[in-house]
Amino acid sequence: MIPYPSLSLSLPAWLTEVCTSTAITPMPTPEARMEFVIGLARRNIEERTGGPFAAAVFDLSTHALVAPGVNRVTAQNCSSAHAEIVALSIAQQRMKNYDLGAPGLPHCELVTSTDPCAMCLGAVPWSGVRALVCGARGEDACAIGMDEGAKPTDWVGELERRGISVTRDVCRSAAAAVLQDYLASGGAIYNARQGD
Amino acid sequence: MIPYPSLSLSLPAWLTEVCTSTAITPMPTPEARMEFVIGLARRNIEERTGGPFAAAVFDLSTHALVAPGVNRVTAQNCSSAHAEIVALSIAQQRMKNYDLGAPGLPHCELVTSTDPCAMCLGAVPWSGVRALVCGARGEDACAIGMDEGAKPTDWVGELERRGISVTRDVCRSAAAAVLQDYLASGGAIYNARQGD
Repeated sequence: MIPYPSLSLSLPAWLTEVCTSTAITPMPTPEARMEFVIGLARRNIEERTGGPFAAAVFDLSTHALVAPGVNRVTAQNCSSAHAEIVALSIAQQRMKNYDLGAPGLPHCELVTSTDPCAMCLGAVPWSGVRALVCGARGEDACAIGMDEGAKPTDWVGELERRGISVTRDVCRSAAAAVLQDYLASGGAIYNARQGD
Repeated sequence: MIPYPSLSLSLPAWLTEVCTSTAITPMPTPEARMEFVIGLARRNIEERTGGPFAAAVFDLSTHALVAPGVNRVTAQNCSSAHAEIVALSIAQQRMKNYDLGAPGLPHCELVTSTDPCAMCLGAVPWSGVRALVCGARGEDACAIGMDEGAKPTDWVGELERRGISVTRDVCRSAAAAVLQDYLASGGAIYNARQGD
């Protein structure tokens, strides 16, 4: 028995296949990038590989995909495996750098199907990305019983003061519809602590 | 070439050895648990396996070690590999559950050598732990140039309202001394984005 097993955060097989077997061409508009991400969130529900959230890191100049991510909390027994953390971590592994904003690397953007929760919000400045694009609002996640945690009141301003641009409500209704469909399909509303 | 490489978050070899070759006996006082964690932070500097931070998950009733963690940001090219995330993730792998507060599991406590940053603070409620014990203050980390991010003003109250007890300043001066020693040793002060 391994007493302290490593965590391996990986993409589900279907997602690796989507992003490698097909040529993923650059997606020049924020709406196109968001539609791609929303499609991943929807597929993550259908494949039962995690919660109804997806994210992706894009090259801010060429709009090429750097790394995709989907929520893997239940699938990988890891409460931190939110879509944003997965996408950022895989992008960093790919770039072999903990800082996606390091000199010599392409400038990066994080596109997420729902506003980041408190944890993912805190992770954004550490990741080195220069832009954040969000689909559904935090309140759309709360509307299906998900908890987004305690964020600073002016979280958008906090990111912008750190040189990270924030664009919200991109394809919001399509992104929110994925959350509602997850709820309707009987998807697990995991949250903080289930025990007393 | 693997286009989207998985992230493997693992403990450095010395830490696995510390926690398996020696019998780790339960540590009944918060000070004893904090001294253990501070020792890991100090060793992480000496071994050059990451930043000057450590954390550990303990069984809240027996005070037995559930999982240790150290900062692995630079060592594993992962900006989210803070000590708290590593310890929580490895505890969850060990328990085979994304919720350390799930029915049937021992109640858990997270002990961290420094107040959690904004990301780790957001991660605490999702992890299922019932108690947080902190050593150095966030301002002790800021004093060596580390950034703790934008936290809600009353972050202690936010955790306590979620049923997570918070104890701060446990062995604070010994914990802060590790940070100062890291700075004096020329340790890298990585933070958000290094590029323009």
